[in-house]
Amino acid sequence: MSNPQITFRQTTFTGPSLLSARRRTISRTTIRAQLDQLRANGQYDCFKLGWHPIYDDKSRWPAPLHLFWDSDVAKWIEGACYFLADEYDVEVDAAVRELVAMIRGAQHADGYLNIHFSVVEPGKRWTNIRDMHEMYNAGHLIEAALAHTQYYRNDLLMEPIEKYIAHIRHRFGSGDGQLRAYPGHPEIELALLRFYSVTGSRDAYDLARFFLEERGNPTGQDGQHFYDWEMERRGEPRWKRPNSFPMDRSYWYCQAHAPILDQPTIEGHAVRAMYLLTAAADLLNLSRTGSPSAPAQPLAAAPDWLAALRRLWSNMVDKKMYLTGGIGAMAQWEGFGIDYFLPQGADEGGCYAETCASVGVMMLAERLLHADPELDGRYADVMELCLYNNVMTAMSLDGRAFTYENPLASCEGAPSGREDWFWCACCPPNVTRLFGSLGGYLWDYGGGGEDEAWVNVHLYTNAEVKFAAGGAEVTLSQKSNWPWEGNVQFELGGAEALETTIRLRIPAWAEGAFVLTPAAAPGTTALEGGYLRLCPAYTAAHAVFSLDVGGFAPRFVAPHPYTGQRTLGLARGPVVYCVEDADHGWEGNHFKDVGLRRGEAVREEWRSADGGGDGEGYVALRTVGWERSPEDLQSGGEGVRRELVFVPFYFRANRGGKGQMRVGLRDDGR
Amino acid sequence: MSNPQITFRQTTFTGPSLLSARRRTISRTTIRAQLDQLRANGQYDCFKLGWHPIYDDKSRWPAPLHLFWDSDVAKWIEGACYFLADEYDVEVDAAVRELVAMIRGAQHADGYLNIHFSVVEPGKRWTNIRDMHEMYNAGHLIEAALAHTQYYRNDLLMEPIEKYIAHIRHRFGSGDGQLRAYPGHPEIELALLRFYSVTGSRDAYDLARFFLEERGNPTGQDGQHFYDWEMERRGEPRWKRPNSFPMDRSYWYCQAHAPILDQPTIEGHAVRAMYLLTAAADLLNLSRTGSPSAPAQPLAAAPDWLAALRRLWSNMVDKKMYLTGGIGAMAQWEGFGIDYFLPQGADEGGCYAETCASVGVMMLAERLLHADPELDGRYADVMELCLYNNVMTAMSLDGRAFTYENPLASCEGAPSGREDWFWCACCPPNVTRLFGSLGGYLWDYGGGGEDEAWVNVHLYTNAEVKFAAGGAEVTLSQKSNWPWEGNVQFELGGAEALETTIRLRIPAWAEGAFVLTPAAAPGTTALEGGYLRLCPAYTAAHAVFSLDVGGFAPRFVAPHPYTGQRTLGLARGPVVYCVEDADHGWEGNHFKDVGLRRGEAVREEWRSADGGGDGEGYVALRTVGWERSPEDLQSGGEGVRRELVFVPFYFRANRGGKGQMRVGLRDDGR
Repeated sequence: MSNPQITFRQTTFTGPSLLSARRRTISRTTIRAQLDQLRANGQYDCFKLGWHPIYDDKSRWPAPLHLFWDSDVAKWIEGACYFLADEYDVEVDAAVRELVAMIRGAQHADGYLNIHFSVVEPGKRWTNIRDMHEMYNAGHLIEAALAHTQYYRNDLLMEPIEKYIAHIRHRFGSGDGQLRAYPGHPEIELALLRFYSVTGSRDAYDLARFFLEERGNPTGQDGQHFYDWEMERRGEPRWKRPNSFPMDRSYWYCQAHAPILDQPTIEGHAVRAMYLLTAAADLLNLSRTGSPSAPAQPLAAAPDWLAALRRLWSNMVDKKMYLTGGIGAMAQWEGFGIDYFLPQGADEGGCYAETCASVGVMMLAERLLHADPELDGRYADVMELCLYNNVMTAMSLDGRAFTYENPLASCEGAPSGREDWFWCACCPPNVTRLFGSLGGYLWDYGGGGEDEAWVNVHLYTNAEVKFAAGGAEVTLSQKSNWPWEGNVQFELGGAEALETTIRLRIPAWAEGAFVLTPAAAPGTTALEGGYLRLCPAYTAAHAVFSLDVGGFAPRFVAPHPYTGQRTLGLARGPVVYCVEDADHGWEGNHFKDVGLRRGEAVREEWRSADGGGDGEGYVALRTVGWERSPEDLQSGGEGVRRELVFVPFYFRANRGGKGQMRVGLRDDGR
Repeated sequence: MSNPQITFRQTTFTGPSLLSARRRTISRTTIRAQLDQLRANGQYDCFKLGWHPIYDDKSRWPAPLHLFWDSDVAKWIEGACYFLADEYDVEVDAAVRELVAMIRGAQHADGYLNIHFSVVEPGKRWTNIRDMHEMYNAGHLIEAALAHTQYYRNDLLMEPIEKYIAHIRHRFGSGDGQLRAYPGHPEIELALLRFYSVTGSRDAYDLARFFLEERGNPTGQDGQHFYDWEMERRGEPRWKRPNSFPMDRSYWYCQAHAPILDQPTIEGHAVRAMYLLTAAADLLNLSRTGSPSAPAQPLAAAPDWLAALRRLWSNMVDKKMYLTGGIGAMAQWEGFGIDYFLPQGADEGGCYAETCASVGVMMLAERLLHADPELDGRYADVMELCLYNNVMTAMSLDGRAFTYENPLASCEGAPSGREDWFWCACCPPNVTRLFGSLGGYLWDYGGGGEDEAWVNVHLYTNAEVKFAAGGAEVTLSQKSNWPWEGNVQFELGGAEALETTIRLRIPAWAEGAFVLTPAAAPGTTALEGGYLRLCPAYTAAHAVFSLDVGGFAPRFVAPHPYTGQRTLGLARGPVVYCVEDADHGWEGNHFKDVGLRRGEAVREEWRSADGGGDGEGYVALRTVGWERSPEDLQSGGEGVRRELVFVPFYFRANRGGKGQMRVGLRDDGR
């Protein structure tokens, strides 16, 4: 099994593109800005195990504000290591080294490693596995260690982490005297499986699999649900519950209401759900392919895991995902509402669409591209949708400000904007990690028999990948102005002696419109599962070829009718658009009164983003709309005709203004 | 101050009408059916203070299933006494007498009177005033006592209730050693003010006023919010909270998040809000007019109370009320969501629209017609809307089945139907009480100086009112086939020596269309605040006159655009319509796929309701719609043309079928 956090180093971003521009900003600005935040807020020093004033704050239960600090540091290390590989930065390098030394120093003799339960509540470790995020933090430390050893080629972080894994493995599992627990916030499962695929540690694999298989067992611990059991041990009545639980025993919040294989729909906290299912996909993937250091592991229930993953994925994508790839309508539990409940903003019933959740969708989608035996372009379509919209909108143009929630419409209580940092700072370093390993999401590839090679291209940009197959070093480069234009030029190298199959994704929004040049001889290409397959006969004849993907004309997009909404928005290629008040000085009501008519002409306009370098320009869209008050609508009044400018949703809130923004406007018919 | 529970006896329903048909069903069937339920479920005997198996059930906290039994019995007694006055029933009479004897026997020596804290948790009285409904139950006992003494002309129930009021008054208030508490579920306030207006008990007035003025005080009890204070005394952390609190300290659930006068919007549990504001309106009303036995009481803050009542009423009616008069989108707290959040059903985000809440809206509206110095027909329009729709839909045609929730659309998880009874049985007897005192809602009236009389007519039906003014017995009768036809014939009697002013409501949906016959001479009538005022010059000249109200053509109705919905429904006069599968055998998806076009012809059809007697027929509406699947809508397909039959929303679920029903269909434009 490979995953993008490992394989990204095979890929080089080779020229100007929107993706490489964002990567450059993160590398040169964001990493340091986030480091400054860690230093300013206390996280940087937390592994010294001194006291911090915030530890006195008892206003939040069960999770105090600092509970995630371990993971904030770990995720920053992980992201930093990814970018150091691209572009060395002496200050970042020094900070990583110092942080690793502090982490090593914070470990207990028995392997335990956690700030809160070392400093604030030393006697209470492992007493509230549902809420206290010990395993979540551990998971991010494991991921940090894997990134660290990959870049630094030493075991300074791997060593304490292996010890911590052994500590956890000793305590939890199905054996005598072990607790049948599983983390309230999944994360360690995918980290352990990643750890297995790098190290071959059978303990890591077994522990992850135990967590996945045990989750939601109604009678796992002494005949009780584990979370009931541990709650009773803490002496808490079931009515004492976190604010994220709307009702008592709302274990669906953390996907523990039923065993994963029995869950009919995707529920609860969206980030937790994505991390959990990513691990489940890894488990399935590991039953099909191992890695050089870790053999594949048989999984008798593999068909059930595949069915569960497909079922939950489809429920999410078909009924619980916003047009922008955002998931999670409900703020209270940062997660999924009922089917088709997708209001655009807080004043319409909710729209959380957390940044981390869409990073998680990308992780899950990428895993499913391997784990599902049937290659399905829908996974990659959704991965791209998240990337260019809900994920990319989470960082400002200058790389210094971030979002947590990404609603499709602003309102008085929640203007469109970004923040320097958050008390719960999970999202900013998740964007960093994602962009750091982005090369791993573009394609996957490998060899077959002695003389075979294959590449599945999921995302288009300017990049090159190198990999070994059949004893050769194969390269495939792509050049394009994606996501603004659909022409992609490919060059295959080093594959002269190989039978090479290349699959090129044809996005669903292209509606089948594409041109391959040179044209294929009969029988040398085929369309399957959303990909154009180029057979060895084609690639042997054409080492240089190009694909022109259609669908770059602006198109009107609307949510499913069962959402009960009647709105229209604009999209172009993979990019979803919005209107904001920076272009419309007259707007004062968050575009609530503005309608569009499907079929109205839409003009394109190339704009250079202020202050951005190569790759930061964008296509704006112009059309007309009608501003009609509720009274106009009641009386049939025509309202005021308005010239409208649409900008990419990811670009919103970079030009000042009043923070008024909307993706879906009222559908005024044709 | 008068209120409809007192004044209804001045009114006689004089001929067949929808209202009198429903009243007859309740009188002859429902009262006994509800008595049978009380007997079968344990409530009937509960004041004997024996043990009942349900008392062992600890599954619900804080309110066990039997916590409201006192009120169930009390509300049944109240309703029974109202109907006994109309139609004597020996079995009902005997049951009331036996229940009153049991209640008398259940009172403690110190006046305390409550089943749960007498039998189940005798040591814990008054320790959880937020949740445990002692005062709510007390309020309903007070109302029962008032109804009982009005019918029976004895003090058998008034006597223990006076003693209980004295007990409560002693314990709660602003004096030394008193607790500054107020009930979690308002009800006792309006009961105490009603008690005051009948008995002149200053203690009752002062206690009610204290509860109203103290509510939401952030520092009332020893510097703390009372509910925080009592929670600490119980040793509960703030994280231990009822399921109805989505977050800790969700005191808005019971309108205790801020003093009433400071509340900007209407929030929380809808029934609680209505009962509370009804009491606030009574307080205001009592500052303007007393009653024969209870003088008006000065209220320095009267302008602030008026402003608060108008503000909260408008927020509710303009932004938080369904087309059917239902209030409360949110099931978790049985109450209000954010502004304009009005999904039609559980599978669209919620629609609770509790029966009791609309009974409460009617109570509040009726009070505001007195308490607001400016007569405003909007109050009566909403009162009528609730009566013919959300309230009337709560009982089956046969008077034996009831609803609690009244969503505007069914779904798989919640088919359209009714139940014989509920564990929390607040709604059925509330319908009984309301219809029992309905005569009091039709009009108000009185005398002025020595030779003046006035009547404000709010609701039209077949009825007559008698009252004393200027030494004469004035009668006003109205005859009509309302709500099916707009012609109302009036006859004024006994007013020959008086200057009589009559105001006739012109509903907003009539859009100003009405004809008065005989026509008025110039200056003898005027339109004001939604009423047509007939001056003494007119009434002196015309003791017999008639009003023809327009607006009975079927009309398309739609929710406010800011609801984010685009639906169309049908209404005719005050009646809102729905479609249900009993008329549409092809329907299998709860009419989710069916659209209407505004402007399409609508035909009327008189139907006799099966099994109903006089007054149970109704006007059905026929039009055409288009069934279009999500795929049709995507592709612009025309779909299937469907003949549609609309029946009154109140009439739904009386003819079998699959329980598929919808009020608002997709708006397919014109």
